[in-house]
Amino acid sequence: MLRADGIHRVAVEDPGSLGARQHLRHCGLDTPPVPVDTDGVRVDELRATGAPAVLLTPAHQFPTGVVLGGERRRELMRWARAGGLIIEDDYDAEHRYDRPPVPALRSMLPEHVCYAGSVSKLLAPALRVGWMLAPPAYRDALVAAKRFTDLGNAALPQLVLAHLMESGELERHLRQVRRRHRRRRDAMIRAIRAHLPGAVAHGAAAGLHLTVTFDGDFADAGLARAALAQGVKTQPLSWHSQRPGRPGLVLGYAASTPTDIAEGIALIGEALRRLGP
Amino acid sequence: MLRADGIHRVAVEDPGSLGARQHLRHCGLDTPPVPVDTDGVRVDELRATGAPAVLLTPAHQFPTGVVLGGERRRELMRWARAGGLIIEDDYDAEHRYDRPPVPALRSMLPEHVCYAGSVSKLLAPALRVGWMLAPPAYRDALVAAKRFTDLGNAALPQLVLAHLMESGELERHLRQVRRRHRRRRDAMIRAIRAHLPGAVAHGAAAGLHLTVTFDGDFADAGLARAALAQGVKTQPLSWHSQRPGRPGLVLGYAASTPTDIAEGIALIGEALRRLGP
Repeated sequence: MLRADGIHRVAVEDPGSLGARQHLRHCGLDTPPVPVDTDGVRVDELRATGAPAVLLTPAHQFPTGVVLGGERRRELMRWARAGGLIIEDDYDAEHRYDRPPVPALRSMLPEHVCYAGSVSKLLAPALRVGWMLAPPAYRDALVAAKRFTDLGNAALPQLVLAHLMESGELERHLRQVRRRHRRRRDAMIRAIRAHLPGAVAHGAAAGLHLTVTFDGDFADAGLARAALAQGVKTQPLSWHSQRPGRPGLVLGYAASTPTDIAEGIALIGEALRRLGP
Repeated sequence: MLRADGIHRVAVEDPGSLGARQHLRHCGLDTPPVPVDTDGVRVDELRATGAPAVLLTPAHQFPTGVVLGGERRRELMRWARAGGLIIEDDYDAEHRYDRPPVPALRSMLPEHVCYAGSVSKLLAPALRVGWMLAPPAYRDALVAAKRFTDLGNAALPQLVLAHLMESGELERHLRQVRRRHRRRRDAMIRAIRAHLPGAVAHGAAAGLHLTVTFDGDFADAGLARAALAQGVKTQPLSWHSQRPGRPGLVLGYAASTPTDIAEGIALIGEALRRLGP
């Protein structure tokens, strides 16, 4: 659909989701990398790529966890108003612990932002329920693309979701998992301090994962492999980077108890010492 | 996926499903038409197209309702063994009234047949549950294509289906709807005799629809439009034909009571007389 609109390059955050990048490339699109700093995506670097579109995770950047800053948002809006298309993945916007949620970019510039969200992180990826708010110009092409992809989503999960929303159960569920996630996040931060001295944890304010980076210069994929051999599943940060960067790991905490988290981080610490970077 | 395998043309039955043809074309594939007679697809004509693949509905050809005959099956197997790929849409195979089911082509030649089925007609299209048995050579590409399409199906409808199968409810449901469909089919045949003199009904032995053809030379799309204006939804046969043919209508009976069916056919008869073909 983007290619039919003359768009052959979609800039992506770097680091940024490997899965999203693979998806864009599968669709025949180039994915020039744009660096991310503590305020989010670098709009000057986005401009420098010359790409007509960008895929962003402004609410909780994956994998660094930073939130797109106010001045950066305004700069991005200027870029979009001049003709750029923003694809806003509002991923993890509802999992927020220490500060109020930020508004979606979509609310500021609906004509230039294609907004996408899902209940994958809130309820279950297996529901396969998400939504997209697209600029009006893309509506017909999107409806046709959806038809040719799958003739529409299964009705049953949507009915279940509607029931959970109408009954207030979804709000109750979110409050409950937010408390649980915060405990698990705190356990992970404590374990990182105890077992991974020198590691820096990023993105603790929201989301369901932390990213840790390490000093030194070693292959984080080797560390992830060693941890997996001990039964601890992580993702090497390098998977999500197109340009060279610090070694690191992406560590999910949503699905493990505080005890398991502490044990897992301790095992990563042992693997790290054995690797001796 | 087919194009990656050097397949750019998929022959289709003519008449044959408009939706399936649109889908293939959306994927950039040509769809040379192959005539269908009372024994099903004409394999000599398939050979003449030179297409390396064919999409078939052997159990209950859409929309004519014929079943692929024994000699025709053997001829088709020879074509496939010489390198042809058969995509078998086992559509409506379970809705069978007056004779035993026929075996799937897949059972005869698994290396050359890509078999597809779903519960759309048996339970509900809104479940979006189907299956495919592909030749081993296509397995990895199919898994990747599925991943890049939707990351996998919703789990909830699959769990519901598994429960219905394990508990025997699915079998009971099929027996129940088979009796109901047969009554509705019989009501439709009676109404066609009464209200559409001269029309020929095809495909009564199985499925959830009849196709009627008319003598004369008129635009069946106009008849379908006139019927729709009276609240009777049908599909003109010409939608499903690439080559010129007799005018006709595709008439579904699964979702209407015998009374509604009789009234609907009567309204079509009036529309036909007003058109005066």
